[in-house]
Amino acid sequence: MRFDPDHLKFNAAGLIPVVAQEALSGELLMLAWMNAEAVRRTLATGRVTYWSRSRQDYWVKGETSGHVQRLVELRVDCDRDALLVLVEQDGPACHTNRRSCFYTAVRDGEEVVIMEPMG
Amino acid sequence: MRFDPDHLKFNAAGLIPVVAQEALSGELLMLAWMNAEAVRRTLATGRVTYWSRSRQDYWVKGETSGHVQRLVELRVDCDRDALLVLVEQDGPACHTNRRSCFYTAVRDGEEVVIMEPMG
Repeated sequence: MRFDPDHLKFNAAGLIPVVAQEALSGELLMLAWMNAEAVRRTLATGRVTYWSRSRQDYWVKGETSGHVQRLVELRVDCDRDALLVLVEQDGPACHTNRRSCFYTAVRDGEEVVIMEPMG
Repeated sequence: MRFDPDHLKFNAAGLIPVVAQEALSGELLMLAWMNAEAVRRTLATGRVTYWSRSRQDYWVKGETSGHVQRLVELRVDCDRDALLVLVEQDGPACHTNRRSCFYTAVRDGEEVVIMEPMG
């Protein structure tokens, strides 16, 4: 079946959550959002392109930081309301300069930072 | 710092997206949603508990199917608006009986099913 980004299930704001995972290591990098056009651009360019909810604009990951996400494969979930992008991530995925945005673990009820910013 | 589920950033419906990843293999299993109470229950019981948007009720993963998710670790992202649960998943995570909900890949513009239901 032909993949049509318009046939995904978007929320009221026209967005779908996207999980980015490093293709080789399996490391979970971040969760962000796309609209249908961002999905199209990601597939057309091979550069992962989100929709920035704070800036209300397209966000080509790494465009300003250089920390590019190259698309290896896009996957759709069973309900068509979530996406997975397998990527090759240059440097840190997180704006805090950490490899992953999920650097805070909850252990015995306490928040523990388990990842340092990259050098 | 003490972790307080009420200090996460929830959407207008009071929900936060949660990515479930198999702790050992790194396999991405599913994306679902929690409210603050579901986060509390997950931490208190060690059984991953979502909020079902379709049923509008708590959803203890595996309660009816037996396909339990045992919590290994909860992680919070930099913006506090997404969660990662590292889990031990019994059997399939997906209601289609597949290991992961992300069983459809987009390859050359076509949807390709890359995972079979478990036997």
